Amino acid sequence: MSRKIEIFDTTLRDGEQVPGCQLSTEEKVVIARELELLGVDVIEAGFPISSPGDFLSVVELSKAVSTGICALTRSKKEDIDVAAEALHHAKRGRIHTGIGSSDIHIKTKFNSSREKVLEQGVWAVSYAKAKGYEVEFFAEDAGRADLAFLAQMVEAVIAAGADVVNIPDTTGYCLPHLYGKRIQYLFEHVKNIHKATISVHCHNDLGMATANTMAGLIAGAGQAEVTINGIGERAGNTSLEEVAMIIRTHKDLDLHTNIVSERLYGVSNLVSDMMRMPVQPNKAIVGANAFAHSSGIHQDGFLKNSENYEIINPSDVGVPTSSIVLTARSGRAALKHRLELLGYQPSKPELDQLYEAFLIVADEKKNVNDADLMVIAANTSLLVQK
Amino acid sequence: MSRKIEIFDTTLRDGEQVPGCQLSTEEKVVIARELELLGVDVIEAGFPISSPGDFLSVVELSKAVSTGICALTRSKKEDIDVAAEALHHAKRGRIHTGIGSSDIHIKTKFNSSREKVLEQGVWAVSYAKAKGYEVEFFAEDAGRADLAFLAQMVEAVIAAGADVVNIPDTTGYCLPHLYGKRIQYLFEHVKNIHKATISVHCHNDLGMATANTMAGLIAGAGQAEVTINGIGERAGNTSLEEVAMIIRTHKDLDLHTNIVSERLYGVSNLVSDMMRMPVQPNKAIVGANAFAHSSGIHQDGFLKNSENYEIINPSDVGVPTSSIVLTARSGRAALKHRLELLGYQPSKPELDQLYEAFLIVADEKKNVNDADLMVIAANTSLLVQK
Repeated sequence: MSRKIEIFDTTLRDGEQVPGCQLSTEEKVVIARELELLGVDVIEAGFPISSPGDFLSVVELSKAVSTGICALTRSKKEDIDVAAEALHHAKRGRIHTGIGSSDIHIKTKFNSSREKVLEQGVWAVSYAKAKGYEVEFFAEDAGRADLAFLAQMVEAVIAAGADVVNIPDTTGYCLPHLYGKRIQYLFEHVKNIHKATISVHCHNDLGMATANTMAGLIAGAGQAEVTINGIGERAGNTSLEEVAMIIRTHKDLDLHTNIVSERLYGVSNLVSDMMRMPVQPNKAIVGANAFAHSSGIHQDGFLKNSENYEIINPSDVGVPTSSIVLTARSGRAALKHRLELLGYQPSKPELDQLYEAFLIVADEKKNVNDADLMVIAANTSLLVQK
Repeated sequence: MSRKIEIFDTTLRDGEQVPGCQLSTEEKVVIARELELLGVDVIEAGFPISSPGDFLSVVELSKAVSTGICALTRSKKEDIDVAAEALHHAKRGRIHTGIGSSDIHIKTKFNSSREKVLEQGVWAVSYAKAKGYEVEFFAEDAGRADLAFLAQMVEAVIAAGADVVNIPDTTGYCLPHLYGKRIQYLFEHVKNIHKATISVHCHNDLGMATANTMAGLIAGAGQAEVTINGIGERAGNTSLEEVAMIIRTHKDLDLHTNIVSERLYGVSNLVSDMMRMPVQPNKAIVGANAFAHSSGIHQDGFLKNSENYEIINPSDVGVPTSSIVLTARSGRAALKHRLELLGYQPSKPELDQLYEAFLIVADEKKNVNDADLMVIAANTSLLVQK
């Protein structure tokens, strides 16, 4: 039976902390409602102790949606107390606490030792657990942590009651085969690992966030931490839309999510607009060009059978249709297709003549639009045939 | 000894065919000169038979740079004749010819059979080889081709004289472990494979282009086909900057390229401006936020030791410095750092007071800038200490 992957969306926490992306509580509620309709399992709503605005957001999102609501904390009493208070109205609340796990974080960030951070992490999980919420533990910078120590930490926090353990590649350093092996190692060496869900949280500094996330899920992790459009600290997080569509496209992985993929394009646009974070045209799944075919070879093959160049039906992600754009690289098949849409039915010799005229225009203009085509057709005496 | 990976840049062919990205020949020459300085090994300069503009571009780029110049063709006599003519002035010219290798392409695009496309591909390589240039063969849609047939095709075109064989994941369908296994299979089953360089050309439809490229290189491929900023058909190609920096960061891979990484940021900006293709802020390596730290936890850790949150020194890719941006998520350490840059030296109690005032401003504003900080400092009677 296909294995369910929980989608943990941190657009409103890791995404929202990005320069320029800050939202009002009202705006966050709008996005949270869309995430609920999208089928996200848990929404990370903020870091309550960090500011009054974040506290209020966790309170209001807890009231607004039935989706799980998660609040971030450090492994500190005051953080956990404030998060627990903010989650009061959540139908399903989760405290996300944690501490550094790599030696570089332990030494230069906490000025501490492996023993002390382990002890503090275990204490934080127990303390959070006593608040009556689900508890997720993050082992910060796990991507660079000593593996044996990481396994020891994971085992200890699960024993202390962690429901979910997050193995973040905080700096975006890992490559997929290495990150997958880390997750596999944990499954092989942590005795109580099946008592918790292992979560993957990957950053995109080397462009590997999605690939690392998939490697972690294939190795056994049950939750993916993602954001809409891959926004987040520095080069961002893993894109929700990429993970959802990989799982949907690759049935061979035998995984599934609750994501309603037809809503992806709409949510992507909403988040991009509200957060003022442009999505580049060549962004996978949700970029403006993601389903646009422009070269002649591609257009010709696409018109013969869309599956020649398209592995996802654009309507599956809420994009109305594939676009055929005419440029100097377009071939006769694409030109004929567009002319036919305009009502022309050129014969073979007419098409040859039109194509010559088209190439001259196309070498001067970036894109050839319908108005240009009508001028070209008129100049070659072609008439619309109704 | 570390293995050299050839960087084949197709920004000016696969990238330039994107809607809105078309360049004049003069603009292409400007970018080609920058690619040469960047250390690219081969520049794919166009598809000469497709338009007079592309023909001219191949001619002028051949004259302008000493880098290898490649011209695209189908497996057709007229394409190869025209490409050979366009490459006349190249110091090192390459004809890139090929044909579909997947059954879906063979049947619905070419209305042909495996035997016939194989025959045509072999003929095209022999014909191109006789022109006296390097010959690269592309097995289009190799990501979905029958593996045994693909191996047969690769062996046959190498026997016919192909110097390089490109195994494109044309539709961006593959996952890294599957794509890596395809390349590995070829190395295990194609007898004459060491007589040619295997090249990887991956599309980004599922966000996997860079990961697939790396999997192919790790499995033995010797050339990566990439574009600046990952531009290209649909969701684009593999990003040159990501591949170059993964290879540079992960010494354990024992690979190297000739890329002068310090020029990456400048070339990225040039291509983005000239092609009118924005780079999203959260793009790896070259995005505006790629080295920006905004959350309090991250800023505090970063200020203690930049390696806590930074695996690449921004100056290594030509970005002047990491940015600390103040938002409601910023902590006391970041506030103190920015105040000190402005000449203030707050005491601990003063900093606490300033931080309270800062949070109120930060909850209202998206970013807190230096002018805001000076107002806050003035309101709390803090003076600049010179």
